[in-house]
Amino acid sequence: MGERTRIARYFAPLAPDAGSFSLTDDAAVLAAPAGFSLVITTDSVIESVHVLAAATPQQFATKLVRRNLSDLAAMGAQPWRYTLNLHTPHGIADEWFAKFSAALVAEQSQFGMVLIGGDSTSAPHAAIHATMTCFGLLDGAPLRRNGAQVGDDIYVSGTIGDAALGLLMLQQKLPSDPALIARYHTPQPRLALGSSLHGIATSAMDISDGLLADTAQLCSASDVGAIIHRDAIPLSPAAQQAVAWQAILNGGDDYELLFTAPTSARDTIAELAASLALQLTRIGEITAGNEVVLVDENNVRLPMPSAGFTHD
Amino acid sequence: MGERTRIARYFAPLAPDAGSFSLTDDAAVLAAPAGFSLVITTDSVIESVHVLAAATPQQFATKLVRRNLSDLAAMGAQPWRYTLNLHTPHGIADEWFAKFSAALVAEQSQFGMVLIGGDSTSAPHAAIHATMTCFGLLDGAPLRRNGAQVGDDIYVSGTIGDAALGLLMLQQKLPSDPALIARYHTPQPRLALGSSLHGIATSAMDISDGLLADTAQLCSASDVGAIIHRDAIPLSPAAQQAVAWQAILNGGDDYELLFTAPTSARDTIAELAASLALQLTRIGEITAGNEVVLVDENNVRLPMPSAGFTHD
Repeated sequence: MGERTRIARYFAPLAPDAGSFSLTDDAAVLAAPAGFSLVITTDSVIESVHVLAAATPQQFATKLVRRNLSDLAAMGAQPWRYTLNLHTPHGIADEWFAKFSAALVAEQSQFGMVLIGGDSTSAPHAAIHATMTCFGLLDGAPLRRNGAQVGDDIYVSGTIGDAALGLLMLQQKLPSDPALIARYHTPQPRLALGSSLHGIATSAMDISDGLLADTAQLCSASDVGAIIHRDAIPLSPAAQQAVAWQAILNGGDDYELLFTAPTSARDTIAELAASLALQLTRIGEITAGNEVVLVDENNVRLPMPSAGFTHD
Repeated sequence: MGERTRIARYFAPLAPDAGSFSLTDDAAVLAAPAGFSLVITTDSVIESVHVLAAATPQQFATKLVRRNLSDLAAMGAQPWRYTLNLHTPHGIADEWFAKFSAALVAEQSQFGMVLIGGDSTSAPHAAIHATMTCFGLLDGAPLRRNGAQVGDDIYVSGTIGDAALGLLMLQQKLPSDPALIARYHTPQPRLALGSSLHGIATSAMDISDGLLADTAQLCSASDVGAIIHRDAIPLSPAAQQAVAWQAILNGGDDYELLFTAPTSARDTIAELAASLALQLTRIGEITAGNEVVLVDENNVRLPMPSAGFTHD
């Protein structure tokens, strides 16, 4: 059973509150501090699952923070507070905690949030588990996944596939390129973009499981289909060299934003890209139906690469 | 390095917000919904650490929920919402999730809270890890650990040591007694008591690491000492039979409340015990200095049993 099926079957019935969106969005919205909504999101990083077994404490902390903040960005919220649960193997060196907490200091300073609680457990297991729960503040309505309309444009921020290629490099499957490896270790949560998309985007989510899988998620939530123009997908120069479509279309860990907007918003989005100094690229259109279709430059349908990463 | 030292050294500097109490209390207080403070607490349950390796999904869920709710009770807050992070070994049966979620349904119904988010990860590790983050509502000021005054009475709710004895029974170290085993598996978070102690108690915390260790924590937070009258400690009939002071004084998992109040509150507390139908027992006094002393019925000092459970 996949994660989504499991959540829908076993956990969504436990979540009747309207602000939890039946557990289908990136984060939950609670009624919260004066003038703001409080946005809660939580994600874990497990050694050898979300980071490599050889991950440094800094890589661990960075991935943990940014996985979470990417979810806040996707809702249009700003970081505020967080809790941390840390489960470490017996006998781990204090040095690990020192480096991990130093990395968190840098992260929370950069992103303007502070720790408010947590727990720490030493366990007789080999892998480090960390969970972060982030509390974001939101001025206005959240960006949701379910608002895409037939005829909307589909956009992505940044470039797609770099982190997946970086991971292949770390696994010695591609020649190494420090820029792409950095994209894997140090995602950039698109917080400024998320908070700028209020009133512009009709739907948004972050790309964590791969462009095609996440487009399918967004379409499912909005009850629409999509055409993705493969040659419009923005690639870094290094990704253009690699021509590894399987990794680019299905690779996880991009942490870019995927969003939809009416065609009337094209000028506004171009201005937004300029003001944020962030590439925002139109890669397709929302269609009627429920299918996500990939096409080439002549609008000829391409075979879908086999499914990317799925939680199980 | 102990957990508290590690937190003080590495994590407290990350928590400058006044509502996080330098990470020394049971939960954090955030400015929150109209008329209420939002109280956040988070705790994990790891297989073979906080529950036995053979724990059923129901035992796992129950311990997870109640460990967290005991922290809300200690602050005087009421359950409201929660998030869940679940890390399970590859190949775990769907049946496990079904039973686990069914147990959560029962718990959230009993305690009046609902799930609002989380994550679920399958990992190549043998142990189940679950983290819950609970959001409580608080009407008024939180109960803190740091308000005990010299001359205050020290109270505990319920009976002490039952869970530790229950665990020894599960480990085949004592003859089995279903009532004490139930106390280990099914703690009773003292929520009604916690919310009734506003304006009465000068300090409060839940007993999770053992009576003496937690009394020392409360005294340290309040910068006071304590005398505990061993023969005043309330014991269940089964615990009276066992006469295992080491387990009773140092055993974890009681999840009773430890609190202090001025001597002028004795009548009020007696009335509260009656109205809640919950035993509230005066077991000692707060003293000047920083020492926690255990005495017998003649006020003769007893040797302290060797230290109980400490996180590391």
